Amino acid sequence: MHKSVLRALRMPAQIRRRLGLIAATKWHRATLAQVGAGSRFQPGVRFDDPSSVTIGAGCYIWRGVEVSAETGRAGLRIGDGVQINRDVHLDTTGGLVIGDNTLISEGAVIYTHDHGLDPWSVPQPMVKTIGAGVWIGMRAVILPQCRRIGDGAVIGAGAVVTRDVPAGAVVAGNPARIIGQRARVAE
Amino acid sequence: MHKSVLRALRMPAQIRRRLGLIAATKWHRATLAQVGAGSRFQPGVRFDDPSSVTIGAGCYIWRGVEVSAETGRAGLRIGDGVQINRDVHLDTTGGLVIGDNTLISEGAVIYTHDHGLDPWSVPQPMVKTIGAGVWIGMRAVILPQCRRIGDGAVIGAGAVVTRDVPAGAVVAGNPARIIGQRARVAE
Amino acid sequence: MHKSVLRALRMPAQIRRRLGLIAATKWHRATLAQVGAGSRFQPGVRFDDPSSVTIGAGCYIWRGVEVSAETGRAGLRIGDGVQINRDVHLDTTGGLVIGDNTLISEGAVIYTHDHGLDPWSVPQPMVKTIGAGVWIGMRAVILPQCRRIGDGAVIGAGAVVTRDVPAGAVVAGNPARIIGQRARVAE
Repeated sequence: MHKSVLRALRMPAQIRRRLGLIAATKWHRATLAQVGAGSRFQPGVRFDDPSSVTIGAGCYIWRGVEVSAETGRAGLRIGDGVQINRDVHLDTTGGLVIGDNTLISEGAVIYTHDHGLDPWSVPQPMVKTIGAGVWIGMRAVILPQCRRIGDGAVIGAGAVVTRDVPAGAVVAGNPARIIGQRARVAE
Repeated sequence: MHKSVLRALRMPAQIRRRLGLIAATKWHRATLAQVGAGSRFQPGVRFDDPSSVTIGAGCYIWRGVEVSAETGRAGLRIGDGVQINRDVHLDTTGGLVIGDNTLISEGAVIYTHDHGLDPWSVPQPMVKTIGAGVWIGMRAVILPQCRRIGDGAVIGAGAVVTRDVPAGAVVAGNPARIIGQRARVAE
Repeated sequence: MHKSVLRALRMPAQIRRRLGLIAATKWHRATLAQVGAGSRFQPGVRFDDPSSVTIGAGCYIWRGVEVSAETGRAGLRIGDGVQINRDVHLDTTGGLVIGDNTLISEGAVIYTHDHGLDPWSVPQPMVKTIGAGVWIGMRAVILPQCRRIGDGAVIGAGAVVTRDVPAGAVVAGNPARIIGQRARVAE
């Protein structure tokens, strides 16, 4: 095929993407418990239990994000100005709260239930609170034993977080350890 | 759209999920070499070479699981009561055996072939045996040089396993090191 | 259904896979800025900005590979004989150059832009050059602060690379550290 023909064929792909964003946003706005003004969703976002999810204003949710729960409907509560990047998996079995202006980078995974050592056991819910202005790096793994991440904390790319993270702490590694303290950015 | 209309539209999604489970289970039961009683598959599971796969009774395979082989058909043999969680990738080029009641958590990847340092070389098959009652954590990476994981071992989330793991050992980190010994759970 | 019937039904799947490879290769060859002789693409490869991508001869790109850019079109330049395995994500916001005969293994992610600590800021492009004969292991994370990976370097599976890697170095871990030096393989 002639290149110019193919380039013309590609144009609609950009329009399709724009339309996909509009359609997905409309859908989630209609099915989630609550979505604030200006929040947008790319196509390919999946909520297992949409009626247990509330999202604030000005958020942006990328494609491939999945929100699932093993049992019940403890749910997910997201503040304003939150970004959740592509292919993030949020387990909301135990309940998950995410503060304003927090960013979760590509491919991170956050768990809120545990099975001890018996995978066939009833999942034990473990609520988790992530503060405001937190940055969770690419591919980070946040285990259920981490119950709280304080405001302004930074979680390094690929970190495996096994315990609570204090406000403003910078953690990294596997298992994650505190490697620094973030200067106060804003009050 | 009115919310109640949309909620009604969502109902069939749950039924569709149930039907998807039944249909996928029927399909894999018909195409795999052997599947034991009560084993179930979510939709979106992929076997490159289904006739080289045998699965025991009472297993549960989540969506996004992929079983692939670079060459030949060394195959996969899974015992009873095994859970393989979402987005796990099993490479069966060298042959892979998984014991009863073992759990492989979300996003783990297990390799059974190596290329030395020439990616275009013929893959060198390296058979791997994973024991019974093993727990492999989320996003763990099990390299081909790990040939055996003993019964009851626990592999931490995000661990990168480069060598054999003794029975009952708890390993974690990158590279994975032994950090504990599991108390005898059951004989 | 009778097993022989189902086995017959599966035959076309292999043919479909072959046809998929041919069709995807034709498509990318027509839309990318340049593709060398003999390079092939599996179906399910995605380029956000195909006209900024040039690929040499004899390359092989697996399904699930995504090439994206946050802004502009700094682009991607790949040499000859490069393999990019399944589910790799290349961010080309800052510009990415990959040398001949380099291999990027399954699920690796490579970033070329940074946001400092404000996720809503304009992305800061950071060009990255990966040499020839480099091996990037499974699930490795290459952060934007790593600007150069020298010829013949080896990046271990699951490594989180935060700085430059000298030619021939073997690095591993989280964060990645030099653990060895590769013997000269070829000149």
